[in-house]
Amino acid sequence: MQAEIVSIGTELLLGVIVDTNAAYVSRRLAEIGIDLYHRVTVGDNEGRIARCIEEALRRADVVLCTGGLGPTVDDVTRQAVARATGRELVLDEEMLGWIEERFRGWGHPMSENNRRQAFKPEGAIAIENPVGTAPIFIVQDERGDVIVLPGVPHEMEHLMEHEVIPYLKGKLGHQEVIKARVLRTVGVGESQVDSHIGDLMESANPTVGLAAHPGQTDVRIVAKAASEEEADRLIADMERQVCERLGQVIYGVGK
Amino acid sequence: MQAEIVSIGTELLLGVIVDTNAAYVSRRLAEIGIDLYHRVTVGDNEGRIARCIEEALRRADVVLCTGGLGPTVDDVTRQAVARATGRELVLDEEMLGWIEERFRGWGHPMSENNRRQAFKPEGAIAIENPVGTAPIFIVQDERGDVIVLPGVPHEMEHLMEHEVIPYLKGKLGHQEVIKARVLRTVGVGESQVDSHIGDLMESANPTVGLAAHPGQTDVRIVAKAASEEEADRLIADMERQVCERLGQVIYGVGK
Repeated sequence: MQAEIVSIGTELLLGVIVDTNAAYVSRRLAEIGIDLYHRVTVGDNEGRIARCIEEALRRADVVLCTGGLGPTVDDVTRQAVARATGRELVLDEEMLGWIEERFRGWGHPMSENNRRQAFKPEGAIAIENPVGTAPIFIVQDERGDVIVLPGVPHEMEHLMEHEVIPYLKGKLGHQEVIKARVLRTVGVGESQVDSHIGDLMESANPTVGLAAHPGQTDVRIVAKAASEEEADRLIADMERQVCERLGQVIYGVGK
Repeated sequence: MQAEIVSIGTELLLGVIVDTNAAYVSRRLAEIGIDLYHRVTVGDNEGRIARCIEEALRRADVVLCTGGLGPTVDDVTRQAVARATGRELVLDEEMLGWIEERFRGWGHPMSENNRRQAFKPEGAIAIENPVGTAPIFIVQDERGDVIVLPGVPHEMEHLMEHEVIPYLKGKLGHQEVIKARVLRTVGVGESQVDSHIGDLMESANPTVGLAAHPGQTDVRIVAKAASEEEADRLIADMERQVCERLGQVIYGVGK
């Protein structure tokens, strides 16, 4: 299964915010074995967001959007998803009930503009957000699923963990596992490591990649398999080959 | 002038690394008044990187790539840029000289695979990298410029500051200035702020946007103008209107 992430927010494009959400979602997808080949970041502009989602749906089975679900006029993700999937944006009474309940719990009056957060593209699956005002939703389009998450990190992470990951695991059925192992080397440059294991880096599964840090080069082995055991076995085989070639410059391992 | 950023690296898509480079480049572009509407992240795959660059060239005047300039076989940005711009990848003797000089300076032997870093698409402008081994280059395509930067943050930032920003300013000629001012509010929710200044948020220049943090909502005013003075005036006008509407919930200002 192939996913794409669409990160939404003008503040991301101004560089005011670093997109830690995209890294979190990427990591969680990798952990359950979903491939990710592209991520895109776009501002709070309905037309541009809609076009990004349409392009992502041409390539991927699942599109995960983060951001732009707030109650204000510059939060246009709902409208953009409706446009991209050719649906009307409709008020959902159940979503409205969840939002009203949240405000009652806090003892705050609900602003009129929070009603905006009760709209979803017609036919979308609505999911309650127990840690914020914006319910999320999933549009099951014939081209793929569009899953829409808030941009506030703790809300996004909560909903990803408790709702989206179980949903995606359910879709995966017989699930693939991705496991990684990092061999840390010291005292040799990236290019020297490469000259020893360049051919191993052409392996498709497990893959072998390098990451250079000041004074240190990591060798990253990533395996995809039907079970943890098989992934571990694939990694162990490759790790043995890398260790034979590099020997004592490896000083540690990590995940 | 419109730019796009293509962030390159499988580790970004695995979520192992947070893409701070993209935020840095975004911020620097905004400071000199270059518009940025899309950013894309793609793995170390020649075909996919090439397609992302081609798509970016359809929309933007300048495409800035970061990452994938290392000496190893999984560093394929050079090949991808050559493919996207329909050029041969050729060894550049001047670039090779810079790399050899760098190794002489360090007193290390140069690995054979560091020669890979001396290749550029035919006709590209080569620029020395005084803080790392990978020289950078700019392809001036008829569709727009492709500027290729390393992924190592301190190298990327050095080259952005000393080479790319002056190059872009030169292209801009009569330069636009973007300035921002943030009004910090407390004790009111994002939706209440929105209900008071929602109409101001439809202004095109200066723009007015909201960012909610726990217990606090920021009102961000961003102006684009031919001079700092004009930008300041635009911001001051808008700030006065926002303050009239919100009054005492504003407790501070920032940039």
